[in-house]
Amino acid sequence: MYWRKKLYIIIFGTNTKAGKLFDLALLWVIIASVLLVMMESVAGLETDHGRLFHDLEWGFTILFSIEYLLRIYSHPKPLTYVFSFWGLIDLLSILPAYLSLVLAGTHFLTVIRILRLARVFRILKLGRYFSESQTLGKALYASSYKITVFLVAVLLVVITLGSVMYVVEGGNNGFSSIPQSIYWAIITITTVGYGDIVPVTALGKFFASLIMIIGYAIIAVPTGIITAEITKAQMGKPACPHCGKELPDGAIAFCPWCGEPVKKA
Amino acid sequence: MYWRKKLYIIIFGTNTKAGKLFDLALLWVIIASVLLVMMESVAGLETDHGRLFHDLEWGFTILFSIEYLLRIYSHPKPLTYVFSFWGLIDLLSILPAYLSLVLAGTHFLTVIRILRLARVFRILKLGRYFSESQTLGKALYASSYKITVFLVAVLLVVITLGSVMYVVEGGNNGFSSIPQSIYWAIITITTVGYGDIVPVTALGKFFASLIMIIGYAIIAVPTGIITAEITKAQMGKPACPHCGKELPDGAIAFCPWCGEPVKKA
Amino acid sequence: MYWRKKLYIIIFGTNTKAGKLFDLALLWVIIASVLLVMMESVAGLETDHGRLFHDLEWGFTILFSIEYLLRIYSHPKPLTYVFSFWGLIDLLSILPAYLSLVLAGTHFLTVIRILRLARVFRILKLGRYFSESQTLGKALYASSYKITVFLVAVLLVVITLGSVMYVVEGGNNGFSSIPQSIYWAIITITTVGYGDIVPVTALGKFFASLIMIIGYAIIAVPTGIITAEITKAQMGKPACPHCGKELPDGAIAFCPWCGEPVKKA
Amino acid sequence: MYWRKKLYIIIFGTNTKAGKLFDLALLWVIIASVLLVMMESVAGLETDHGRLFHDLEWGFTILFSIEYLLRIYSHPKPLTYVFSFWGLIDLLSILPAYLSLVLAGTHFLTVIRILRLARVFRILKLGRYFSESQTLGKALYASSYKITVFLVAVLLVVITLGSVMYVVEGGNNGFSSIPQSIYWAIITITTVGYGDIVPVTALGKFFASLIMIIGYAIIAVPTGIITAEITKAQMGKPACPHCGKELPDGAIAFCPWCGEPVKKA
Repeated sequence: MYWRKKLYIIIFGTNTKAGKLFDLALLWVIIASVLLVMMESVAGLETDHGRLFHDLEWGFTILFSIEYLLRIYSHPKPLTYVFSFWGLIDLLSILPAYLSLVLAGTHFLTVIRILRLARVFRILKLGRYFSESQTLGKALYASSYKITVFLVAVLLVVITLGSVMYVVEGGNNGFSSIPQSIYWAIITITTVGYGDIVPVTALGKFFASLIMIIGYAIIAVPTGIITAEITKAQMGKPACPHCGKELPDGAIAFCPWCGEPVKKA
Repeated sequence: MYWRKKLYIIIFGTNTKAGKLFDLALLWVIIASVLLVMMESVAGLETDHGRLFHDLEWGFTILFSIEYLLRIYSHPKPLTYVFSFWGLIDLLSILPAYLSLVLAGTHFLTVIRILRLARVFRILKLGRYFSESQTLGKALYASSYKITVFLVAVLLVVITLGSVMYVVEGGNNGFSSIPQSIYWAIITITTVGYGDIVPVTALGKFFASLIMIIGYAIIAVPTGIITAEITKAQMGKPACPHCGKELPDGAIAFCPWCGEPVKKA
Repeated sequence: MYWRKKLYIIIFGTNTKAGKLFDLALLWVIIASVLLVMMESVAGLETDHGRLFHDLEWGFTILFSIEYLLRIYSHPKPLTYVFSFWGLIDLLSILPAYLSLVLAGTHFLTVIRILRLARVFRILKLGRYFSESQTLGKALYASSYKITVFLVAVLLVVITLGSVMYVVEGGNNGFSSIPQSIYWAIITITTVGYGDIVPVTALGKFFASLIMIIGYAIIAVPTGIITAEITKAQMGKPACPHCGKELPDGAIAFCPWCGEPVKKA
Repeated sequence: MYWRKKLYIIIFGTNTKAGKLFDLALLWVIIASVLLVMMESVAGLETDHGRLFHDLEWGFTILFSIEYLLRIYSHPKPLTYVFSFWGLIDLLSILPAYLSLVLAGTHFLTVIRILRLARVFRILKLGRYFSESQTLGKALYASSYKITVFLVAVLLVVITLGSVMYVVEGGNNGFSSIPQSIYWAIITITTVGYGDIVPVTALGKFFASLIMIIGYAIIAVPTGIITAEITKAQMGKPACPHCGKELPDGAIAFCPWCGEPVKKA
């Protein structure tokens, strides 16, 4: 019982010297294991050092598996940890390696463990970087409703325009089906523009131009949403937690915009 | 007469249980019918299940036709509904299917019924999503004048630059006509960049570079316009309905910027 | 002398009925002549209606030439008009047609007359569109210094990175010279990405990734500049004409930021 | 000793007439030498004027070498200059030429001397351009923490998505290794979209669409960050040097957001 508590402080905590060392070591082991998987995927290196790569990767997998078991063992509420966001990421970091015994090729998905770095950064609390990432996170969270509305609108537009292009190009020139045409519409409206599918008929080019100009104008919308949030976050003015609008100065008990009760700091 | 009123409340209303159920059912039927049309357009699936797809699609078309007729029948002012924005969308959702009896291939345009989802979302009133979409809508509406001015300016620039490139590249390398060169200029200035038409001469590359850098700078304009509107909408400050400029605090009867009378809430 | 004055009021003025009619007629003649030049450039139409196109184009050219001469004749200070911005555009609208007698193909450049539409729009004073375009114009003018600094910085970055890529790719894979590599760097940093020139070596791809991520971050700079200006313009707050910073409320005689004298409206 | 001081005033200073002349001469010599290197890289010009280019380039190299030595000689603290930012740029401007005696092709890297122009601009103090570039610089510096957090997040996302695409596309269609797939993910998320690597499987296209839409939404983040900074810089309101948040009006000794001591100007 005593060891479990001590382990918990080292593995999950960051205030002790041992806890900090553990996190730093984890940081480097994760980076090393990700680099290894990347090198494995390069054909030239794989044929030369395949044996070594294979052994090293299993070494890392066993190491991360032990760490995962220790995290479950030491956590006061094991199930809470297992089903938490970071607990699932930890599981996803080792699962693909075991899965590769059944399904070849899936072990490359262990690269997902790179996401564990985000927690390590969070834990190391790199001063101002940490607070800035919180400001950014809050701004993104605050704009998540508007971004969702925007993405649904883009989806409806893209499905409609993709289908129209499918009919206009008559199923030729790469517009071989409606899902394919929707894929093209997404490539175009996001201004990525691979050029693997391209309109050939005059009418198709005319519609494509319309889509591009629409995309040009609406790319401004998410930018506007997030900019407004960041500006607000930076001004340090209080905002209503219900409707997100700025609260007026002075002591108030209810938001003047939506009528919900507010408590000002 | 009694049934007509009851039908109206179910079909157009959303406050009764039956009205909500109807909208939810409609939501899923629309999604199912759109997925069906998408699957029909995939060559492999069509050859295997063509018969089934054909029957199902006519089933959906008849269903939506009945719904359309009921909407006209139950509405207190049928013509107002028929020529309203949503009435036209409803008509466009069934028309292509009947048109396909005359003109093959057009039935794929029934995908347009995906736009009906926008109304269903509006009707279901998904709490905060609804109010956020209204904020976005207002900001876009408020900036529509500026966006129009911007798009006209882009059009003039694109026509001029496209023609210059047609002369510079001498009608070769894909710049086969002025409309084609304008199409290229739109692809370039919106930063889509398919790469299907590309300048080959040194002078052409120089002009193309200029257009890209211009596009780089002016993509900022619609963003600036919409950001300013969203920021204003979020600040909750009153704005003049005539010139769009922010009104000063205090009780005023006329906008200090354009002199038009204003009523503050 | 009397006729000269009357002509001036009709051609340059917009307050009389005749002046408005003249501008409206000009609007449609310009659009017709531009459409004609576009149709001329399409190979299929040219072979069929070449003779007709040729005659019509000379008709338009003579019409615009007469208008140009009348403008010079009726203007109180002819030279001021000839060397003004719009005077030069007017000249450029007819010059290419006469030039085509010596240099074949240049008559397509008469499309430049599309820019004359900008003046016509300005003259027709389309209510709110006009005032919005002025707001936009002011915001762009106010940010012109910052945009220039930004473009010079982009130019230095693009020249440096283009040269580095030329050395890295060893003059192969389309990076055949430094100007060509700079052209590639512009395509990449503006996120146009045609794909006609693409790095092939591993080191080249690494550098290209860096350039893309740099471009991703700095595309935000012009947007930020213009957004800040538009926001300021819309707030209707007074700004110092010397340093562009916002002036505090109250009666002041000197800008508190740069010390230059200011006069508040 | 007297000459050293005089040299210092001419080379590093800008207030004397000789100092200004020196900087102006330097400006043109740098531009000429960069144009020379560019012309050298063009195959056609090189074969015709190779001898001349070679001689001229060594002339410029010797000139810049003498200038560099004089800068070291005249500076009161030579080592401080050598290891300063501009001192290193000055060294990098001549080093590649000497390196080319050992490693062929590297002399093209002397183009780096174009960066020296940035200092010359700084020195010439072009009035408002100078102050605007300082405003921009401050805004970028103030947002450097947030931009770093954002770039690290993008890096983690790009590594994860690139690996997933490698597994999805099964190492075919150009997704030949994880680093290559990451390169593709960067091309896609930055909306550059060359089209040299493109998903072919249906699942791959679905994931690619997701990445594009994610890229579409998050391109808004750096824009929002920088816009907020520029807006703040332009408003001329004081900000806490520790947390970057806006300070309230009135005489205060501590930042009300982070508690650090502040001194208001």
